[in-house]
This record gives sequence, structure tokens and C-alpha cells, in this order.
Amino acid sequence: MDFSSKLLENAVYEISQLPGIGKRTALRLVLHLLKQPENQTNSLATALVSLRSQIKFCKSCHNISDVDLCEICANPKRDENIVCIVEDIRDVMAIENTGQFRGLYHVLGGKISPMEGIGPQDLNISSLIAKAKSGIIKEIIFALSSTMEGDTTNFYIYKQIEGLEISTSTIARGVAVGDELEYADEVTLGRSIINRIPFEGSLKAN
Amino acid sequence: MDFSSKLLENAVYEISQLPGIGKRTALRLVLHLLKQPENQTNSLATALVSLRSQIKFCKSCHNISDVDLCEICANPKRDENIVCIVEDIRDVMAIENTGQFRGLYHVLGGKISPMEGIGPQDLNISSLIAKAKSGIIKEIIFALSSTMEGDTTNFYIYKQIEGLEISTSTIARGVAVGDELEYADEVTLGRSIINRIPFEGSLKAN
Repeated sequence: MDFSSKLLENAVYEISQLPGIGKRTALRLVLHLLKQPENQTNSLATALVSLRSQIKFCKSCHNISDVDLCEICANPKRDENIVCIVEDIRDVMAIENTGQFRGLYHVLGGKISPMEGIGPQDLNISSLIAKAKSGIIKEIIFALSSTMEGDTTNFYIYKQIEGLEISTSTIARGVAVGDELEYADEVTLGRSIINRIPFEGSLKAN
Repeated sequence: MDFSSKLLENAVYEISQLPGIGKRTALRLVLHLLKQPENQTNSLATALVSLRSQIKFCKSCHNISDVDLCEICANPKRDENIVCIVEDIRDVMAIENTGQFRGLYHVLGGKISPMEGIGPQDLNISSLIAKAKSGIIKEIIFALSSTMEGDTTNFYIYKQIEGLEISTSTIARGVAVGDELEYADEVTLGRSIINRIPFEGSLKAN
């Protein structure tokens, strides 16, 4: 693309560095900002810069937080004996939205992925093991995505806490509530048959 | 969505104000920025703020420019007798990329659209009429999109310059080069038959 302005070219370049945003979309966004009042651009820029410079990660669960210890970890009503291991903060938000979990989280910050060069030392695993060894944790729930990387990560952590008195579980996989069986993939449907639960249990969950 | 951090919530809100970006995409972008070095966020913010505060619009054609008179208008090799009327800067870039036009542009900044409350006074029309009346322009090419709003805008401008010694033309509509006839819509195919050109002319264009 041939820009008539260096300022414009620079702004388009910077926006197109974001994932999933190409040059054309970036140009559309920049032209939109130019049509809006100047303070919209300023508050966008300020929000991003102050987020990046002031954001903290909870020293216990590594969730994003404005303070040293996040709201969930600091809440005395949450059960510190149960820890749910998730990949990133979006998973915390998703589980929190269900309102079904009253334990704490541990945000790994990714999954072990040799292909992308991400090893256990790049993730928040050592602090989890330390917590596990301190004896507070009674149950660990693995809630990583069921990919090869997720399974590897689960297994790596499982091996580290083997021998400690901690029960482990993984979230149930199955046909989504409200979904038609005929549209479910075979692996999911297969698992939901193998891992069937007593009928009375399913009544209680509703 | 329930955020664990005000800073995060604010950044997601500001990004989701951009057109076509919802809260989920905004969150994905923000989390991406958090994983990148801090200077990437800073240069993005700086690029946007300096664009918004320092950008100029060419005083002649209203194209985006870093200086008072844009490169195209300031270029003595361009033919100032031919003016191509376009909706916004993206159209200028598209036409410039063809390398087929050596005249000047006039960027309206939109189309007359009563539905969206955009009247002629909201567009850069008066400066165009002034230029036309000064006698520099010999030909005006209408290159707005062929929608009702585009046609209305063309007609409004045409009425204003009626009586002046200016020839008017509009860009050719037809089946795209390389396209199969069977996939062209009827209106386009119909127009390309009505506005057929001599066969020798088509050879010259290649």
C-alpha cells in the first residue's frame, strides 16, 4: 500500500502488528479514529499504556489483577483447598461466569508446547508445585483444553505432584447442553458415553 | 464479562469502541499486548496519538497529508485540469495503485446520505465548486460507489457545475478483468453490454 502520509503509514503499521488484523483492517480502524473526536484516540492510547505499565499479576494464582493478591485469592469465602488449573485469564473469566466454582485458580500462562518452544520453565508451574507441597491443596482440577499440548501439560504437573495427598480431576467432556447428538463429533460423543453419570446426579445439576 | 482488573476492563472497553471489534476480540488483542514487550504498546499508543494530533488534510484535495499541500497536488507533473472525485482516502490509494491516472483528486469525505444525516454541507463539496468556478478544471471524473447515495452525490455536484465548461465522466462499470461472465450479476453484465467499447480500444488498454 502506498500512503500519502508517514503518520498514517506508521499508525497502520502499528495496528497491523496485532494478531488477526491486516493492513486493510488497520487502515479502516485508523480512518475511523480520524473521524471521531480526538479524545477517543487519547483515551484508547492512555488505557493501553497504563494497562501495560501498571498491570500486576496475582502473586498467588498469576491471574491479572490491579493489586498484589487478586480478588479471588483474597476472598475468604473461596475454598483454598480446591485449585483449578487453567491456561489463561479468559478461562478464569469463563469459569467464573458459570458461578459453579468456589475454589481458587492457578493460571499457567500457556501450555507446554515443544513446537512453539514453550517448556515447563516458561509457565507458572513451579509456584503451583510449591503450593501443592505446602499441603494447602486437597484437590486439583485440570481445566486445560484437550489438545496434545494440554494433555502433555496435565501429565507433567500430575507427575510432579504424584505421591502428595492431592486428588486430581479433569473437567467433564461431552455433548454440550442443548446440542443435538447427531452433530457432535465422534470423540466427544464417545467420551460422553464412557463417562456417563448416574441419572439422579444429572437431575441435581440443573 | 466480569474482569478481575479495572485497568484490563478499561483497555478492553476502549478497543471494543473500534468498528467491527467486539469485547471478545478486544480481550484477545489486549492479552496479546500484555505478552509482548512493553515498548510495542507504547509505540502503538504514540503512533495513534501523534497521527490524531498532527495529521493534516490537504488544503486543495482534502486527502490525508503530513503537509499543507499533499504530494499529489504539489506534483507539477500531474494534470490539474482533470479532477477525480472520490469518497475517501482509500479510493485515492486504490486508484494510485493502478498507475493509470495522472490528474488530481478531490476527496469528499463521504456521500450525501439523508438516512445517516449527512448533507452536502458535511462534505468537501463547496471547495470543489469553488475550484470548478475558478476555471482550472476541464474534466471531472465521478468515481463514487454506484449506490443510491453515490448517485445522489454525483447528481448534486453535477447540478452545481452545470453550465460551466467542464466535461464530466464516470468510471466504467462492467465485468471484472479475468471474471467469468456466468458469475457476474445481471446489472453489471447489462451495463457492460450497453457501454461496450470498440474492440481496438480494448486492445490499446492492455
